[in-house]
Amino acid sequence: MQKNILVIGAGRSATTLIDYFLQHAEALDWRITVGDISEELAQKKIGSHPRGSAIKFDVFNAAQRREEVSKADIVVSMLPASMHIEVAKDCLELGKHLTTASYISKEMKALNKEVEAKDLLFLNEIGLDPGIDHLSAMKLLDEIRADGGKVEHFESFTGGLVAPESDDNPWHYKFTWNPRNVVLASQGGAVKFIHNGKYKYIPYHRVFRRTEYIDIDGYGEFEGYANRDSLSYREVYGLHDVKTLYRGTLRRPGFSRSWNAFVQLGMTDDSYVMEGSETMTHRDFVNSFLPFSLTDSVELKVRAGLLLEQDDRLLEKLRWLGLFDNTPVGLKDATPAQILQHILEKKWAMKPNDRDMIVMWHKIGFVKDGQKFVTESSMVVKGDDQDHTAMAKTVGLPLAIATRMILEGKIKERGVSLPISKDIYEPVLDELAKNGISFNEKTYAVEEFTT
Amino acid sequence: MQKNILVIGAGRSATTLIDYFLQHAEALDWRITVGDISEELAQKKIGSHPRGSAIKFDVFNAAQRREEVSKADIVVSMLPASMHIEVAKDCLELGKHLTTASYISKEMKALNKEVEAKDLLFLNEIGLDPGIDHLSAMKLLDEIRADGGKVEHFESFTGGLVAPESDDNPWHYKFTWNPRNVVLASQGGAVKFIHNGKYKYIPYHRVFRRTEYIDIDGYGEFEGYANRDSLSYREVYGLHDVKTLYRGTLRRPGFSRSWNAFVQLGMTDDSYVMEGSETMTHRDFVNSFLPFSLTDSVELKVRAGLLLEQDDRLLEKLRWLGLFDNTPVGLKDATPAQILQHILEKKWAMKPNDRDMIVMWHKIGFVKDGQKFVTESSMVVKGDDQDHTAMAKTVGLPLAIATRMILEGKIKERGVSLPISKDIYEPVLDELAKNGISFNEKTYAVEEFTT
Repeated sequence: MQKNILVIGAGRSATTLIDYFLQHAEALDWRITVGDISEELAQKKIGSHPRGSAIKFDVFNAAQRREEVSKADIVVSMLPASMHIEVAKDCLELGKHLTTASYISKEMKALNKEVEAKDLLFLNEIGLDPGIDHLSAMKLLDEIRADGGKVEHFESFTGGLVAPESDDNPWHYKFTWNPRNVVLASQGGAVKFIHNGKYKYIPYHRVFRRTEYIDIDGYGEFEGYANRDSLSYREVYGLHDVKTLYRGTLRRPGFSRSWNAFVQLGMTDDSYVMEGSETMTHRDFVNSFLPFSLTDSVELKVRAGLLLEQDDRLLEKLRWLGLFDNTPVGLKDATPAQILQHILEKKWAMKPNDRDMIVMWHKIGFVKDGQKFVTESSMVVKGDDQDHTAMAKTVGLPLAIATRMILEGKIKERGVSLPISKDIYEPVLDELAKNGISFNEKTYAVEEFTT
Repeated sequence: MQKNILVIGAGRSATTLIDYFLQHAEALDWRITVGDISEELAQKKIGSHPRGSAIKFDVFNAAQRREEVSKADIVVSMLPASMHIEVAKDCLELGKHLTTASYISKEMKALNKEVEAKDLLFLNEIGLDPGIDHLSAMKLLDEIRADGGKVEHFESFTGGLVAPESDDNPWHYKFTWNPRNVVLASQGGAVKFIHNGKYKYIPYHRVFRRTEYIDIDGYGEFEGYANRDSLSYREVYGLHDVKTLYRGTLRRPGFSRSWNAFVQLGMTDDSYVMEGSETMTHRDFVNSFLPFSLTDSVELKVRAGLLLEQDDRLLEKLRWLGLFDNTPVGLKDATPAQILQHILEKKWAMKPNDRDMIVMWHKIGFVKDGQKFVTESSMVVKGDDQDHTAMAKTVGLPLAIATRMILEGKIKERGVSLPISKDIYEPVLDELAKNGISFNEKTYAVEEFTT
């Protein structure tokens, strides 16, 4: 019997997802409908595929939403996280499965019993992060536990970066994903994690100075700064005896210290509008955060304010961004964070032939027969081109594979869920590996998990 | 005709206010009713004075509130700022004047037209800060303008400190006022001010490192850090051409840099509850904000985290507070700010014979006949004893004097207002001076207002 898949949202991360559906459509007798607020964008993703149709889709149009959901067998929501819930309620009422790559919201979680009662599965967190991190971590943890190991240490880092061959700037960073999320990263509350059995807290203004260095064979050094939400993983992964639990974001070495300059000066603040931002230059913007001086230049005041030596390379990085230039900002009623993002976008934009790169790294420490061991597991994925980015592949493929499995009746789980059971992680990881998305593992004995 | 004054709130800052009313009660034929949620406290403030009565007063009891307000000719609200509005609405309805020492809230301001229409005056911001700062600044500004000067520079600082004779700790600070406000000072948004015609912004985590040194003849050196709300004073004081506008808080030198240690470590955060605060020691509390180490002590990690030299006196100050001790914190489900306050209160409490001290300082720069001048004006007030503190005197006296003037029909102004007209500031400042609360002024020519 023919099955209908409704994909809502045809943005950057939907390319690989839609490609997968179209590639399998003939063999599995699927029809794919892609809805987006821009019909043109949806049409571009579908191309001329006979089994695909593109529609203009407005998620706030309840009548259209219900009509399209009613025609589908499963709905894949690629909407921003906050918009899933209305689609989810329609899916519940109309008896349709749902998949997303977003964290389970409180509202989504509240539907669990009803979703179960209707024999449906709303599978969330099945993209990259959250997604592949769950799949790969649970596989490692289950293997270690099955082998008699007791897990005491868990670290996990993911980063969206520019590939080495396209890395041509002193920051070793470009915007490969939502720039606003990058600028606001780690804001909104203190970071909380566990280290050797103790709760640890880092205020926002110190997050980028408390980094960890990580070496990944063949790809060199990275540094990681802490994410806000480590502790919730204790429950999800069953890490009840864990003594260290730490999740973070990967960048190339030096990035965090340089980014910290923006944090220290106050440039990442999104809570107030700056006076006269429409007539401000880059240099004025920087000067707004520095003391007045009759004699000292903006450059000198940055050095003094950040306690930098004259030859600190950080100053070069700031200069390279054009922060000291008299270029107009050109934004009205903007917050510091919006202005900073705007300035960064001029320099950190991906060029047409640039490739992105996703890096994921787990470090799991466990005790077996009285000996401490560490398993490190890393995944590096590069983009093929501007459409088939590493981000689109790593978000879209697990979501597409899981959606196929649900349509084929291969996943028995019901309710509002995330992919932590073997029934899901094993086949999804196997198929990801066939598509070039795989992990390198190594295990070695250690004296201590932490030095 | 006999007049009735209702004072709501008999807390620390009400002592001098109530004393003033009782002292004038016989001569001016007043009756004073003091209401507080603690009748005992109200009774203590009234003593056995034949014209005073103490009542248990619950501001949330609408019937009682209306009954007491209806019997009064004027109401003085010493309630916390957020609680004035219900009293104000009763005063409006029942046709009574109102005075407070708090900033005019939006809700209060919204009553302006109705208050005017009923020929009433709701006079706010007539305590210390806001209060004496308005009175003294407006007097200086009006005099300079009347003399042909054009004001281009305005700075104003106030601090509640411990008097030099009671200053016996390395911080040169004790809690002479609400400790919670001290711990949360400058939080909740970036500081915004104008310096030499440019808007300047300081994020919270840098406020305590951007201080200014001030010397007050006979009292030595102080340092000031910025308050959040400088810009609103441009309108209120008519400083439309001002190039520098900066308000701040005074401390003894070294305080801000030391306080900044708490800010940097994240100890002033009030946004989350710490895990296990009830079983935590002071030392555990500090360690929660520091990286784990197998080898380094908490002291060493503080030094490393704050980049301190081994002999930095800041370390002594932290040690003196008992921050490195294994003393239990003894607070359940507490935020970092609550725990820090609790630890500080053990050491920064005023002793029975300690005296407090209020310091206020204005610096006004103006141009006259092509020459730049600066007028500095400073006020220092010491407490007499634990009840008649400098804070109680400087908050209570202007409020009491203005209340008397309203009862005597000497203030014609109507509506929701603050004390910036000559009709108010002149007589109030004169009477304050007779009570030992006065300013020292000096004016001198300068090359530049800012160096």
